[in-house]
Amino acid sequence: MNETKKTPAKILITSGPTRQYLDPVRYLTNASSGRMGSSLAEAALKRGHDVVIVSGPVAVDYPSGAEVIPVVTTDDMLRVANEVFPSCDGAIGAAAPCDYKPLHVSDQKLSKTGRPLQLDLVETPDVIAVLGESKRDDQWVVGFALETDDRRFRATVKLQKKHCDLMVSNGPEAIDASDNHVELLDPAGSVIETISGDKPHVADRLIHHIHNRLILR
Amino acid sequence: MNETKKTPAKILITSGPTRQYLDPVRYLTNASSGRMGSSLAEAALKRGHDVVIVSGPVAVDYPSGAEVIPVVTTDDMLRVANEVFPSCDGAIGAAAPCDYKPLHVSDQKLSKTGRPLQLDLVETPDVIAVLGESKRDDQWVVGFALETDDRRFRATVKLQKKHCDLMVSNGPEAIDASDNHVELLDPAGSVIETISGDKPHVADRLIHHIHNRLILR
Repeated sequence: MNETKKTPAKILITSGPTRQYLDPVRYLTNASSGRMGSSLAEAALKRGHDVVIVSGPVAVDYPSGAEVIPVVTTDDMLRVANEVFPSCDGAIGAAAPCDYKPLHVSDQKLSKTGRPLQLDLVETPDVIAVLGESKRDDQWVVGFALETDDRRFRATVKLQKKHCDLMVSNGPEAIDASDNHVELLDPAGSVIETISGDKPHVADRLIHHIHNRLILR
Repeated sequence: MNETKKTPAKILITSGPTRQYLDPVRYLTNASSGRMGSSLAEAALKRGHDVVIVSGPVAVDYPSGAEVIPVVTTDDMLRVANEVFPSCDGAIGAAAPCDYKPLHVSDQKLSKTGRPLQLDLVETPDVIAVLGESKRDDQWVVGFALETDDRRFRATVKLQKKHCDLMVSNGPEAIDASDNHVELLDPAGSVIETISGDKPHVADRLIHHIHNRLILR
């Protein structure tokens, strides 16, 4: 714990889903709407921080005070996040990057043949883990873990593996919903706060803790 | 050619993408926005027809004069379209239903293992082909063919295979775009009209031909 008390801080927020194309038409993705990322940006801006959002394709409107950099794939998101992170004080991984991609991507639309199709998928890089690993001593990283089972345990394992300073644990019902129910975990796996409500409320409480524990540390 | 001159007609429009989930979070889809379906509905309503839209998950606003039935998967879209079609005079397949689905769907979010993942995909039913095959003599079906190569040839093959009365041929650049460039083909594979412009204009011309050739036949 040093006494930087660096405020306003510059915060990188990853947001929304990413897409991994099989061919020019079909892709793998998830229903992440960007709403949690947008609410976090709004809450951070309200406290006077600067915000850069690296976002996959979404329909949500981000606050006009934030800089938004649009990306499509997980590799794009990682590349841009890596470029932006060195100039930031911390990062919040609110995105749900597609974590598998087709090994082969077809230039042409695959024609239906009437037969099954075997698709070989490989893992994409983990954006927040890469930022967590590369962070300087004066930087912090907050991750999100979306699990269907053993949530708290798996979220704590992810926190440690990804070198995060805090981890937000939630479930699949958070995706594309207006409300959320999360647990904010510290590096020891202890629950700092359980937060329920609409995403602006949840974001407000999360930014409150990030402000007190990581920005004003 | 009989002389039904049935107007106003009741038109079923399929619209938007569908989703095929691998697990509670990840799914296969495409970027179809529902804008072409929405523009077709608007153009048909303007001519006094009744419209039922069966739509996958989209952010677009459909015209308030249309009945909208939301669906998620291709099987859902087919089931609802089959229920609605008997009471309609015709159907327009503006949707881009996901045409492959995972053979196995996991109840739990698949955990990353660090190893490649082999996904077995099987074809989903072809919604417009099923409607084309089941249509009565007094019903008509208009399909859309989205191809990257040999567009006109492949669209004509699809028209015949799917028992369509007209086929709209376009390319992947139509997806999630405000403009479109299409060829309207008759059952012999002849180009009735090449139409370029924003989707409301393209929809207007398509409904013009559908009105004259299929509704007032």
